[in-house]
Amino acid sequence: MNPALPVAVDAMGGDEAPAAVVAGALDASRRGVPVTLVGDRARIEPLLPRASGVGLVHAPDVVAMSDEAGSVRRRADTSIRVAMQLVRRGEACGMVSCGHTGAVVVAAALDLGILDGVERPAIATLLPRADGGRLVLLDAGANVDCRPEQLASFAVLGAAYAELLGVADPRVGLLSIGEEDTKGNMQVRASLPLLRELPLRVVGNVEPGAAMMGGCDVLVCDGFVGNVLLKAAEGAVGVVVQLLREEISRSPGARLGAWLLAGALRRFRRRVAWDVQGGALLLGTDGVVVVGHGRANPRAVGAAIELAARSAHKGLVPVLRSKLGAGVPSV
Amino acid sequence: MNPALPVAVDAMGGDEAPAAVVAGALDASRRGVPVTLVGDRARIEPLLPRASGVGLVHAPDVVAMSDEAGSVRRRADTSIRVAMQLVRRGEACGMVSCGHTGAVVVAAALDLGILDGVERPAIATLLPRADGGRLVLLDAGANVDCRPEQLASFAVLGAAYAELLGVADPRVGLLSIGEEDTKGNMQVRASLPLLRELPLRVVGNVEPGAAMMGGCDVLVCDGFVGNVLLKAAEGAVGVVVQLLREEISRSPGARLGAWLLAGALRRFRRRVAWDVQGGALLLGTDGVVVVGHGRANPRAVGAAIELAARSAHKGLVPVLRSKLGAGVPSV
Repeated sequence: MNPALPVAVDAMGGDEAPAAVVAGALDASRRGVPVTLVGDRARIEPLLPRASGVGLVHAPDVVAMSDEAGSVRRRADTSIRVAMQLVRRGEACGMVSCGHTGAVVVAAALDLGILDGVERPAIATLLPRADGGRLVLLDAGANVDCRPEQLASFAVLGAAYAELLGVADPRVGLLSIGEEDTKGNMQVRASLPLLRELPLRVVGNVEPGAAMMGGCDVLVCDGFVGNVLLKAAEGAVGVVVQLLREEISRSPGARLGAWLLAGALRRFRRRVAWDVQGGALLLGTDGVVVVGHGRANPRAVGAAIELAARSAHKGLVPVLRSKLGAGVPSV
Repeated sequence: MNPALPVAVDAMGGDEAPAAVVAGALDASRRGVPVTLVGDRARIEPLLPRASGVGLVHAPDVVAMSDEAGSVRRRADTSIRVAMQLVRRGEACGMVSCGHTGAVVVAAALDLGILDGVERPAIATLLPRADGGRLVLLDAGANVDCRPEQLASFAVLGAAYAELLGVADPRVGLLSIGEEDTKGNMQVRASLPLLRELPLRVVGNVEPGAAMMGGCDVLVCDGFVGNVLLKAAEGAVGVVVQLLREEISRSPGARLGAWLLAGALRRFRRRVAWDVQGGALLLGTDGVVVVGHGRANPRAVGAAIELAARSAHKGLVPVLRSKLGAGVPSV
């Protein structure tokens, strides 16, 4: 992958598009990542300073959050599809969208294709663990009502991704509500035997808390359940921060304490801020795709763009293809 | 319900049983809640001080965490079943167990019976919300692979419970991964129309984060998904506390700040500590049942016992029965 290739960025996706996306693109560009924005020229151009170095490709159509995901199949002029086409034609090293996740998944499968050996592409998110490591969670929302074969396929993709992140012989867990093999719903009980047949280091059923404490490196689940897990974790941290802020505001001593703690709190926020990495990788398509948060601010957009560039640079797709071609990740 | 009746407590359930359970029972008893411990007399008696005021009923059998839940059907001598029988015979106002949740649910349905109009009993947990309110989450783990009719039944139980907690006309949400009616898995999409038919204030699909921020009072879900949500929230808070502690230990200024913040942190922990309420109510059986956390410490056990006594005192079962008899909660 040519590292000088830009990242194609869907300028129209996200709650504050295009402003937040353009600001994030400018940010990434200033840090040396070439970017091509894709979307409504008339709305984007006024936001781009002269000689910004950021490219712009016009796309007249936009996928709204209320649209059916499948509608992108017949809408080749949407910013999502045009950005995918840039990747497909080798004019971009990867794409980023903070828009309609379902539409991004459909468009990626359609325009980029699915790697041999993959049942369905999955969204992989990294969560901070208490032991300082990172947890690869997948699927975080691309597929609901998954069959056991899909979960097994996610295990292969997740393990390959963890290896790419530098984890040797990653421990793969199946998300459940108890450690015993008999715990879980029908989907989990049917999937565990399939996972155990893979030549991966499968540690069995893992509960959310145990995984976050460091019990595994890859946590495999259905996209509905994974998305609930992710958003429950985000929500709980939000509640904690909010209530802590209220407690601090109640006493002068506590306010002084908070001031003294400010540096630690800042470093801490950097470690747990779910928005700092900016996006999640879609694994299993023949091209780098990063799905950003709908509420992404410019910083998160910039981080998502860097994640796409870094993943392309590290050869995410060729690495996944070789792992899948070998049937399984090298362990 | 006679308020002088004791709470029957399964002394053998939980990771540190019977020691942690006995300590929690003594604690509750000192605070004026009559308690009868149920379990292996030879192991419990040495832990009970003379004239403690805590009763003891012998039960020779114990359900192990690895046992099948259904095995309690033919094991009437287990501490869980004997405690249920005390409630059934009117010798206890409610029961608490920190043991095998599945076995507690089976035993409760068997010994106490299920209220008319209830499909399946559900575990209801309270979560702190960012707006200071409390979120009733159910089912938090009693039933997996729920049919839409079960989720509708949970909505009725949860709304009635929220009213008992003092919330007028509670807002009922269906847990999903997007607000639109079309978002979610097959189970959610099939259930929402049923919920909307109930004469409850159904606000539609609600995401975990939105619910925790205060978007609804009752959050209805399948027990597998609800348990994942609960444990993901607990896990995320655990990670935050752990990483914050590490950051604080790094600098003397931060340590002084933490010392000044100690009071605020203590109050804050009391508000978000998921263990302080000690347990979750099983709703829908003809008797008060509280399911405690397997890792419950004495304080959490004491809180679970108080929750059972308070629920019996407030007439939880008659209130639920009248709401169910009326077809729906009074709104």
